[in-house]
Amino acid sequence: MFIVSEDTCKKLVGRADAFKAVEAVFAAMAKGDAYNFPVIREAIGHADALYGFKSGFDRSGLVLGLKSGGYWPGNAAKGLTNHQSTVFLFDADTGQLKALVGGNYLTAVRTAAASAVSIAHLARRDAKVLGMVGAGHQAAFQLRAAAEQRSFEKVVAWNFHPEMLPGLAGVAEEIGLPFEAVERERLGAEADVIVSITSAHEPLMMREWVKPGTHIACMGTDTKGKQELDPALVAAATLFTDEIAQSVTIGELQHAIAACLVREEAITPIGAVINGTHPGRTSDDEITLFDGTGVGLQDLAVASAAVELAQQSGEATEIAI
Amino acid sequence: MFIVSEDTCKKLVGRADAFKAVEAVFAAMAKGDAYNFPVIREAIGHADALYGFKSGFDRSGLVLGLKSGGYWPGNAAKGLTNHQSTVFLFDADTGQLKALVGGNYLTAVRTAAASAVSIAHLARRDAKVLGMVGAGHQAAFQLRAAAEQRSFEKVVAWNFHPEMLPGLAGVAEEIGLPFEAVERERLGAEADVIVSITSAHEPLMMREWVKPGTHIACMGTDTKGKQELDPALVAAATLFTDEIAQSVTIGELQHAIAACLVREEAITPIGAVINGTHPGRTSDDEITLFDGTGVGLQDLAVASAAVELAQQSGEATEIAI
Repeated sequence: MFIVSEDTCKKLVGRADAFKAVEAVFAAMAKGDAYNFPVIREAIGHADALYGFKSGFDRSGLVLGLKSGGYWPGNAAKGLTNHQSTVFLFDADTGQLKALVGGNYLTAVRTAAASAVSIAHLARRDAKVLGMVGAGHQAAFQLRAAAEQRSFEKVVAWNFHPEMLPGLAGVAEEIGLPFEAVERERLGAEADVIVSITSAHEPLMMREWVKPGTHIACMGTDTKGKQELDPALVAAATLFTDEIAQSVTIGELQHAIAACLVREEAITPIGAVINGTHPGRTSDDEITLFDGTGVGLQDLAVASAAVELAQQSGEATEIAI
Repeated sequence: MFIVSEDTCKKLVGRADAFKAVEAVFAAMAKGDAYNFPVIREAIGHADALYGFKSGFDRSGLVLGLKSGGYWPGNAAKGLTNHQSTVFLFDADTGQLKALVGGNYLTAVRTAAASAVSIAHLARRDAKVLGMVGAGHQAAFQLRAAAEQRSFEKVVAWNFHPEMLPGLAGVAEEIGLPFEAVERERLGAEADVIVSITSAHEPLMMREWVKPGTHIACMGTDTKGKQELDPALVAAATLFTDEIAQSVTIGELQHAIAACLVREEAITPIGAVINGTHPGRTSDDEITLFDGTGVGLQDLAVASAAVELAQQSGEATEIAI
């Protein structure tokens, strides 16, 4: 059994590795070669913690396992990450435990990789302005991954807590992109690609603010009750997601579905675009929307890549169990 | 993070440790201090494998985690155990991975401990004859654990494949108990305590064969469709189980419930007897039945005991993750 630590993952798993792994597993899901098992998510009644598992099996890559973890709001005060994740991979031929992989950093890169995959396949080729809604820990990962997908010339950003924007400005500066903190109306008017990555529970971006041809990667909504977009904006867009079942229940599309503004049949798995069985964007005026809900197979895909990279570089610790 | 291997579990976790851990967690479940999360069980469509997770949280002992594993029918031909299990324990205060524990041996002892707990609390004090229905790998564990609960004078046993009975006879000889292979009718007529541990899909023990005052620990039925007992025998007994929700869906009681011979309200969690809030057996003529379906919290309880014992004896391997 191999152990791949958080530090090893940070050192070895780059954005390109995560992109490749996530793109491949989205493709496998759309072909029916990979599927996610039901999600377990429990408020355990101790330490205000939310705890659970995301799991699945990718038959094409023989990747089987789960990500276990949750959210412990009191951790930050103890100097620990509030989100705690570990990935366990099993040998699909024997069921034996194959690898244990630190999941905190990987969760951040696989989430960023999902929006990057959506931008690569759905944004206009000539997109110039990247709009960031949200400026927390995960926003930095999103910005770095998104920025690589098109020849962006500028970043515009908004955050509920404006004092966090300078942190994101620093990331833009590192990448070499001009950065401007703006109001949401102007963000919508300027951005060709919008990534939303907040924990909002009400619409942050309205239909009338977003210009034709925009691609939106909506990455924050992963629970019942969370919401980032005006349902009218959702209804006006061509809709894509990682997994339809999650999108309509815990993803951004839950609200437009509940309001009967969108039918489930109108939603396309992004894997179909990757596989070429759906054309994706068909005009420069179309608003495309990717609802990134976050599936267990993404975690398993990047963890599997981490194990491979660690084995190649001799940084996977082998232990007997 | 600590690693406790299969070998260390075998060496350190005795029947008394497993009994204590399982009895305590059944008690916590009945008090509402511990609960199991939904079970994930998937036919993954590869290697004929069944794979899944059992998980839960015991607030009284702060034990949080899951047992992951499954059944790979092709393993035996490769020299591996068909059942493959690993237990993962997490720190309930922070969500961090605390221990990884080999789960194959522990699954056998926790299952045996469950029927032993039921015998300790429900069998007649003067029980003399122990009846074993089933003689496979798990039956040896069951026999050893059951034999310690009363002053038995004899073991009678039956198995669908009679050629496996000499193996179980060897275990009885080790314990110092006379052993006799018998037909099922005679088993019912002689036994004061019956442990059934088969993978049968039809009734093996009929109502008219079992004498008044018998305690039955029905341990084999853990899946929809499996069955070991005549539903009329179930209907004639006072009913106990580890978890009612599992008992009526995947346990032995699924059949009597489906046939409307038993109402869910007539089933008592064994923990209530342990806690003294239910009297358990109330007469020497009563047939008592324990439906042992196997819950995740049992696995977590014995794994937690294994970690404690391994830490005390310096045999837990600590690694960084």
